[in-house]
Amino acid sequence: MASPAITERDARRVSADGAVDEADVVAVEEPLEIQVGGEPLVLTMRTPGEDRFLAIGFLFAEGVVRSLADVGTVAHCGRPGEEGFGNVIDVTAGPGVSLDAGRLEGTRRGTLTTASCGICGRRSIDDLIERVGPSERELTVSVATLLEAPTTLAEAQDAFAKTGGVHAATVLDATGAALAHAEDVGRHNAVDKVVGKLLYAERLDEAVTLVVSGRVSFEIVQKAAAAGIPVVVAVSAPTSLAIDLAERAGITLAAFVRGGRMNVYSRADRLR
Amino acid sequence: MASPAITERDARRVSADGAVDEADVVAVEEPLEIQVGGEPLVLTMRTPGEDRFLAIGFLFAEGVVRSLADVGTVAHCGRPGEEGFGNVIDVTAGPGVSLDAGRLEGTRRGTLTTASCGICGRRSIDDLIERVGPSERELTVSVATLLEAPTTLAEAQDAFAKTGGVHAATVLDATGAALAHAEDVGRHNAVDKVVGKLLYAERLDEAVTLVVSGRVSFEIVQKAAAAGIPVVVAVSAPTSLAIDLAERAGITLAAFVRGGRMNVYSRADRLR
Repeated sequence: MASPAITERDARRVSADGAVDEADVVAVEEPLEIQVGGEPLVLTMRTPGEDRFLAIGFLFAEGVVRSLADVGTVAHCGRPGEEGFGNVIDVTAGPGVSLDAGRLEGTRRGTLTTASCGICGRRSIDDLIERVGPSERELTVSVATLLEAPTTLAEAQDAFAKTGGVHAATVLDATGAALAHAEDVGRHNAVDKVVGKLLYAERLDEAVTLVVSGRVSFEIVQKAAAAGIPVVVAVSAPTSLAIDLAERAGITLAAFVRGGRMNVYSRADRLR
Repeated sequence: MASPAITERDARRVSADGAVDEADVVAVEEPLEIQVGGEPLVLTMRTPGEDRFLAIGFLFAEGVVRSLADVGTVAHCGRPGEEGFGNVIDVTAGPGVSLDAGRLEGTRRGTLTTASCGICGRRSIDDLIERVGPSERELTVSVATLLEAPTTLAEAQDAFAKTGGVHAATVLDATGAALAHAEDVGRHNAVDKVVGKLLYAERLDEAVTLVVSGRVSFEIVQKAAAAGIPVVVAVSAPTSLAIDLAERAGITLAAFVRGGRMNVYSRADRLR
């Protein structure tokens, strides 16, 4: 197995007719602690690999890192071969930059995915809009591109196809072509990874559509808003808070995109 | 809408043939802060309703609460009608009890779902086994019961059927009959709620099988282990760490249970 994202475990395949033992390919899940300047900030269960993108994408979504220029080194702590090596990553500030991880402190580091949320959904949305502003981008997107987005996502999927156990996120450009793709056992991690990749590639400004494999909750729309991505497409259902945030953030939110149909919950005026 | 778990949002239903606007039923997502003795402990995005069960189930899984006798009052903070009312819940200690929420502090309150994890998956498992012990229960379960479990779960589903946007968890007794059921936008919350219900009903000792609607990750098996439930059934895929923990905790883990087939990853010797 070349990829750190998948591994094998013994499984007994059972049906009413009998049972057979054989190895099964499963998605790897391991904890990652993200540190800023040596200070532990957050702990998330994730699929190993692309940790650098996950860390930077997460810090970007939370407003701790505002651009690649804010970042000095990004490196796993400890020594290769030590138990648990690879499960702690430290991000240092770039020259002349001070990373304000304190803004996460104020929220008591409640959860990774809701670290930026206040108690009231309404207040969370206000805070986020104040930080990132509503999307004013005047673009339009074709219905055909959005209806095809899940297929574009599926074509990029690798671990998912093998294990059925991970979420996938793909970012498309204005033509509907895939700019970057990531997979993880955590939906939010897949989004952080794909945004982190685009930050490193300095192509985030080309990002138009974020496609996610599952449902779309507040955190997914939050990460799209923080990244300035104006369109979010989900294969499955949205939550109430995801829709409310998309509305306020000026994001076009399309969900249940499958079988040549979709539901558009906000900024449907962008469709052409 | 009588239930706080679902609401309506405007949606434009779009296909290649055209578009029509109509209201869509969606799952409600809102933040909940869980406090212990007035001290904020954790923040999770959840579906409102059954917050009492969610709070107690979560604290039980984390080892902060060991039985219902540890619990005094469980109440929402603030006054009805205030903005955000219902999104903060406080749990106080029962008479003569001191709730040790400090053990979450030590993990830096990384995330709700991984609050009990160390950095290394192996160490997390060791810590958990030390706290809850491996399941020594000598029971057996019938293949038929496990293969039918997703149907039993589906029959109990309510919000899910309407919105396609929530996870469900059902606990079965030794005969395969449903003891309790819960739904939430968060998979881990659905499990906390159903365990909380059984704690309140003082029927947790009858619990044999936990059935979850989606994938099964470390956190789900962790919560089953903490609750002493010896069998976990998932409709979709397991992660590597879920399998490793199930193995160590003596839990029978069946996944991909659908269409009359399943994969059993640990303690298959319990099948009859």
